[in-house]
Amino acid sequence: MSANLALIDSARLMKRHKAMMRIGATGRGGVNRLALSPEDTAARTALLEWAVSRGFSASIDPAGNLFVRRSGIDDQAPPVVTGSHLDSQPTGGNFDGVFGVLAAFEALEALEDRLIQTMRPIELVVWMNEEGARFAPTTMGSGAFAGVLPLPEILTTRDGDGITVADALATSIATLEKSTPLARRPLGTRAHAYIETHIEQGPILDAADIAIGIVTGVQGLRQFEIVVSGVERHAGTTPKHQRKDALASARAIITAIEAECADDEDLVRFTVGRMEVRPGVLNTIPSEVVFTVDLRHPQAATLDRLAASIETAARTHAAPCTASVRPLLASAPTVFDPALIGRIAEACDRLGYSRRDLISGATHDAKHLADRCASGMIFIPCRDGISHNEAESAEPEHMIAGAAVLAEVVLGLAME
Amino acid sequence: MSANLALIDSARLMKRHKAMMRIGATGRGGVNRLALSPEDTAARTALLEWAVSRGFSASIDPAGNLFVRRSGIDDQAPPVVTGSHLDSQPTGGNFDGVFGVLAAFEALEALEDRLIQTMRPIELVVWMNEEGARFAPTTMGSGAFAGVLPLPEILTTRDGDGITVADALATSIATLEKSTPLARRPLGTRAHAYIETHIEQGPILDAADIAIGIVTGVQGLRQFEIVVSGVERHAGTTPKHQRKDALASARAIITAIEAECADDEDLVRFTVGRMEVRPGVLNTIPSEVVFTVDLRHPQAATLDRLAASIETAARTHAAPCTASVRPLLASAPTVFDPALIGRIAEACDRLGYSRRDLISGATHDAKHLADRCASGMIFIPCRDGISHNEAESAEPEHMIAGAAVLAEVVLGLAME
Repeated sequence: MSANLALIDSARLMKRHKAMMRIGATGRGGVNRLALSPEDTAARTALLEWAVSRGFSASIDPAGNLFVRRSGIDDQAPPVVTGSHLDSQPTGGNFDGVFGVLAAFEALEALEDRLIQTMRPIELVVWMNEEGARFAPTTMGSGAFAGVLPLPEILTTRDGDGITVADALATSIATLEKSTPLARRPLGTRAHAYIETHIEQGPILDAADIAIGIVTGVQGLRQFEIVVSGVERHAGTTPKHQRKDALASARAIITAIEAECADDEDLVRFTVGRMEVRPGVLNTIPSEVVFTVDLRHPQAATLDRLAASIETAARTHAAPCTASVRPLLASAPTVFDPALIGRIAEACDRLGYSRRDLISGATHDAKHLADRCASGMIFIPCRDGISHNEAESAEPEHMIAGAAVLAEVVLGLAME
Repeated sequence: MSANLALIDSARLMKRHKAMMRIGATGRGGVNRLALSPEDTAARTALLEWAVSRGFSASIDPAGNLFVRRSGIDDQAPPVVTGSHLDSQPTGGNFDGVFGVLAAFEALEALEDRLIQTMRPIELVVWMNEEGARFAPTTMGSGAFAGVLPLPEILTTRDGDGITVADALATSIATLEKSTPLARRPLGTRAHAYIETHIEQGPILDAADIAIGIVTGVQGLRQFEIVVSGVERHAGTTPKHQRKDALASARAIITAIEAECADDEDLVRFTVGRMEVRPGVLNTIPSEVVFTVDLRHPQAATLDRLAASIETAARTHAAPCTASVRPLLASAPTVFDPALIGRIAEACDRLGYSRRDLISGATHDAKHLADRCASGMIFIPCRDGISHNEAESAEPEHMIAGAAVLAEVVLGLAME
């Protein structure tokens, strides 16, 4: 099977990548393709035109997830599904999402080039609004597909200008259908397996110079907002024993949580990303501090324990102030399919790519799919781990490696 | 001399206090009399009208410091000077500054009532722009008087609307002179002594239920801005060992400074009042934290040592980030005149008021005067130490005590 490396056409993959770079280009090296914007729609249009030219069929579901299908010998069998998203952050890069779509499309084209008939159909999926930058929350389309987010709730979600997903989607579909007719399909169609390629969006592979990350799961996530209330006083006149300094208490709480989060394996992700200090005056003791905690771990039990420690720290270390903890988000860890993980490893080894297992730190559409079918992800390195940034960058050799491994795994799954 | 308690007319003092409460009243219990505003000018006008009705003369210096003078037997002798300020914070209280002016005016009136001829003249001074809320810096008028702030620099200082002190002062003087002619006098006229009454603006007297605070000095002040620079990264994907978390480093720096500041006497005033965390996003590791340090101590050597520890902490604890320290302000400790401190203590004892020595945590006009003549301050308690706030409050009994002690001390000084 090592001839499979030649299965994909790396020059074509890079050409498609360059074409996508132009759609919504910001002029500063990145793209702005907010979900269901004209730019996002233009990227979908380009993909559909390539799909039609290769004889693939296209369909869309009520949540705006777009599918490109290559038929199988047993065309009624649940398809192998692969893809990612084309929407971006407002100052996004050229790899996040789009690489997974192009790698999937390259797999379809490579099979078509060789006239390889697969047993199962293969579907490329472009999930609607993975980023959550225009419409909250993230992974909206895949959440609807998996039945986690109710469709009516999604369709009535508004962007900052008051435009609903329903309206933006109708406009987008009307534009898409000017060039390509789209079949309508229901949400949550059966899938044999789901596999997604993506840049790591973290520094591990890049730092270790490893070509392929085999994603064993998505870590669990808990987010909290903590409000510490003290008393505003003059910095010059108030002795320490009479102070209720909200920032001093906030520091004590954070230090206590941080101590709980210490782990030799460096698996805990503990971040205070936002902190507002009020009134924020040089010579005034802060009366209120609001800060957030973003806490992630691959194991549910550890995450539960650490999340509980936040409440404890707020209760124990707030004095002489008071503190309240408000959970913002809780997402359990995902474990990807062991058999699929094994297939990816085998493909790497056959193709001669270095690999390591890792946990996805960011969430992905694959997280929702994991509840419905055997699912997995393939990561490639991105420079310095930078993502959600116009400076986002990945090496062509790694893009090719990722696409080659994907094609190999998709072919194997589709032959079952 | 204990008959001196009867020297002042407490009913008149409270009546004057209520009259001043109405000038610039915010309707929420406080006042807004920004320096040289129509409200500040109205307060000065009221005072001048009372002064004229008592036969006192009035003059103003080029920095807008207003003087009301009661002649002495030796009218060429340097006067005893007493006063404070009438300007307020935008949401100021009814005691900060104005109480010191009214107590001084009550001393003048009380001597006038009794037809007591003093050897020296007595001058009540209303310093221009003590608060620094409209025009920076604070204690502007007394700074000009003491030669610390150059007059041209003051007169060209602009408020947020671009209005200069020179223009605002000209407008104010024109209004004042509609009712009262003002003699012009130079800056920095000689003074025999300066004494100022003020609310404590801190919680010590109130908590200890003590009527009079004898201010032995003004603590030294150092203010710094510290910038900690890290690297913005995804909170979910970046392992701890690869993080450059600016907030984590800022916390380490602050903790190290705080440890240096620990003192059993509770004399160190260490405050981080402002902290900005950038970009301030829940799931992003902070790339930059800017925070301030406000550090005060009555002893210069200790203050120097603690200020040096800020540089050390920034150098030692910033890793893996970097930090820079920018000094914003340095003000050496002031020690008030021991003989004057003794006079205040004697006056308290004669009049039967409880007293304790304390260090002023806030700065005051008296700090500038201490470089020019024997100077001192008398504090009275304010409720919970609250000041610069519409909720600022002081008990009538304490106002009367403060005014009575002031009158006693001023009379003694003026008889020399």
